[in-house]
Amino acid sequence: MELRYGMNVNEKGHLTISGCDTVELAQKYGTPLYVLDEKFVRKNCREIKDAMAKYFPNGKVMYASKALNNLAMLKIVDSEGLGVDAVSGGELYAALKAGINPEKLELHGNSKCEDEIVLAVENQIGCIIADGLDELDLIENVCKKLNKKASVSIRLRPNIDVHAHTAVQTAKMDCKFGFGISDGQALEGAKRIHNSEFMTLCGIHCHIGSQIFEQEPFAVLCGHFVDFAKTLKTELGITVAEFNFGGGFGVRYTAEDQPKPAESFVKVIFDTLDALCTQNGIAVPKVAFELGRFIVGEAGTTLYTVNGVKEIPDVRTYCMSDGGMFENVRTALYGAVYEAACASKMNQNHVKSVAIAGKCCESGDMITFDSPMPESLEVGDILSVFTTGAYNYSMASNYNRNPVPAMVLVNDGKDDLIVKRQTYDDIIANDLIPESLK
Amino acid sequence: MELRYGMNVNEKGHLTISGCDTVELAQKYGTPLYVLDEKFVRKNCREIKDAMAKYFPNGKVMYASKALNNLAMLKIVDSEGLGVDAVSGGELYAALKAGINPEKLELHGNSKCEDEIVLAVENQIGCIIADGLDELDLIENVCKKLNKKASVSIRLRPNIDVHAHTAVQTAKMDCKFGFGISDGQALEGAKRIHNSEFMTLCGIHCHIGSQIFEQEPFAVLCGHFVDFAKTLKTELGITVAEFNFGGGFGVRYTAEDQPKPAESFVKVIFDTLDALCTQNGIAVPKVAFELGRFIVGEAGTTLYTVNGVKEIPDVRTYCMSDGGMFENVRTALYGAVYEAACASKMNQNHVKSVAIAGKCCESGDMITFDSPMPESLEVGDILSVFTTGAYNYSMASNYNRNPVPAMVLVNDGKDDLIVKRQTYDDIIANDLIPESLK
Repeated sequence: MELRYGMNVNEKGHLTISGCDTVELAQKYGTPLYVLDEKFVRKNCREIKDAMAKYFPNGKVMYASKALNNLAMLKIVDSEGLGVDAVSGGELYAALKAGINPEKLELHGNSKCEDEIVLAVENQIGCIIADGLDELDLIENVCKKLNKKASVSIRLRPNIDVHAHTAVQTAKMDCKFGFGISDGQALEGAKRIHNSEFMTLCGIHCHIGSQIFEQEPFAVLCGHFVDFAKTLKTELGITVAEFNFGGGFGVRYTAEDQPKPAESFVKVIFDTLDALCTQNGIAVPKVAFELGRFIVGEAGTTLYTVNGVKEIPDVRTYCMSDGGMFENVRTALYGAVYEAACASKMNQNHVKSVAIAGKCCESGDMITFDSPMPESLEVGDILSVFTTGAYNYSMASNYNRNPVPAMVLVNDGKDDLIVKRQTYDDIIANDLIPESLK
Repeated sequence: MELRYGMNVNEKGHLTISGCDTVELAQKYGTPLYVLDEKFVRKNCREIKDAMAKYFPNGKVMYASKALNNLAMLKIVDSEGLGVDAVSGGELYAALKAGINPEKLELHGNSKCEDEIVLAVENQIGCIIADGLDELDLIENVCKKLNKKASVSIRLRPNIDVHAHTAVQTAKMDCKFGFGISDGQALEGAKRIHNSEFMTLCGIHCHIGSQIFEQEPFAVLCGHFVDFAKTLKTELGITVAEFNFGGGFGVRYTAEDQPKPAESFVKVIFDTLDALCTQNGIAVPKVAFELGRFIVGEAGTTLYTVNGVKEIPDVRTYCMSDGGMFENVRTALYGAVYEAACASKMNQNHVKSVAIAGKCCESGDMITFDSPMPESLEVGDILSVFTTGAYNYSMASNYNRNPVPAMVLVNDGKDDLIVKRQTYDDIIANDLIPESLK
């Protein structure tokens, strides 16, 4: 297995990440432990910023914080100049707590609650991406009550199929997100915003899905954007200021994934938009992206301690980790496949097929099914599972009352705790016993 | 749809649970809201206790607390005389905090960490169900260090297939749980316990799976238990004191589920064991069950507020709830199917097919795909989704930084908050910002 950016093996045969010995990290902070490589995050931010500088110098890059939302991570992307896309009041609250300029924030979501819209409007965030007609009424009412205006864009559902897990295809016709174009809902939505004294249309938006390795769907999306922009010009005399292409750039989980550079997606969009806008007599608008997994996915690694090794003759060898679906539900939820290694024995040949089990009390709680490991794998060894930066901590639960793990930020031999490990007392902190049961 | 035990419709057309108006509960506590019917829980406890009294008067019933573990729930099952089965240190800690007698506690799990075993041995809990040979070494070492003894039983993996989701089939040969019988590991495990000065063998255990509607697998399991007990008698001269049949009794999610009474499972086991033990010249041992979903599944209901209704012509109608996979991941994870109703409009015909979407930012975040609802369904309506007592709160996450919902206990018109709703500050409570990022 090819080591990721920033990883190495030291003289003890231990995996290092950005100069930190992972076995020492495991001893210092306990396991399971999320490790986040700061330089790797910054490298990814710069890759997309450089591509934008080349093709869309006035473009906008937002960090889709649902991938990994905590105060330190928000600080990092903010310091790189990215905006932050929040999909809930909780994500918006964290971004505000991290001190991010509200103008650099967006609020997404197919089912925004009134208090979430209040938080957005009160703080005058950069943009609310509206998802349906009922929501426009809600935004209008909140604005009226607060006597404040809101910048609103419209999320489109143009019916685009991409090669991805059905759970993460987000622009098909049968999908909860966005305004349909063919059924006139998108135009109706734009009209309401246009006619409102409280809302301003700041752009149009579409997110086609996740883990995309082809450029074509983005070219197809350009066509839908230009068509709809033309409709808005013709019908309402509106010039659309921004096309927001969402995210979805694929990352490497295993050697089978061959991610394209960010620039290749940006270039396709540049070339396509340029041609289409010229043909249709409209100016090329501002272009925006919202990237989550691309920024943080490969920059995260999870460390585990081996609690047991169980050989089942003629079946397989299970290795019992101290993690599981409470801290990485993606294997159980999406059939996600991860690469792993024995971080405490990197200098031994990884030749034995091992299934890494989680500790949750159900058969489906597995992390991997076939990971090459050293023959000597034993209790106390440290495992590393790669590309766990996105949608691992963010989906963590207290299933089986397991505490949510700690997260440590590493950078050139320095390690800083950025999320404290939950305690058992944290888990029951909100429990109450009524008088009748005392 | 047939209303569950304890439910009714009042003069306002609102759903009531144990005499509490669900629309008033939603107003008082906010939504999403988990509602737990105390009488329903107690009724289920009594059903299995009555069956045991009839067939196995010295039998043992444990509540499998992974289904729903919080202090109030633990108090209820304790007051009904059930023991508590914990699958982690966190569950054990909560049970101890609830004041349950340690003798009535068990510790399960395929990958127990040392600190979890320490907690069990220090508190001298009733039984540790050992899952593998490495774990027996760990228990032995912990006991030595603490100079305390442990009651240990052995979890068997006899290779039994049941009709259930593969994620919840737990006694097949290719499964992370338990000691294989045919490969000699179970016998080896029993020998080690037998020869240890720190461990006592208190029984043998097997859990065959979840949501089981047939009695036959339990009869098959009786055969495996008797065979293994005979082996232990012949090889080691040990008489097995207890057969623990785990759980798995199916409950009703939808009208298609036809759960059997608990007594029917107990009777099959009684009849089969009686015959087999006589044939094999061994005494019928103590019988134990560990039931989670059976005790609490149908006693739970989740309430939501409708944030929007989106009609997609010729496709389907999506109804946007304020819940989702952060508080009920079972639809996304297992393809679970739930029944739902409009709790605020129970007196209107539920004739329109609606898909109830969650608010999380992915297409897969759906709660139901085809729920009959009133034609007038609109923003502000309250939805109720049934049979959400088990594996909903217990698997809740902060995905998209959504707060874990509150839970209210209802009983004959009285309502008590038993889990406070998380705040946004709770969610970021463990976040730290290193100096370098300030």
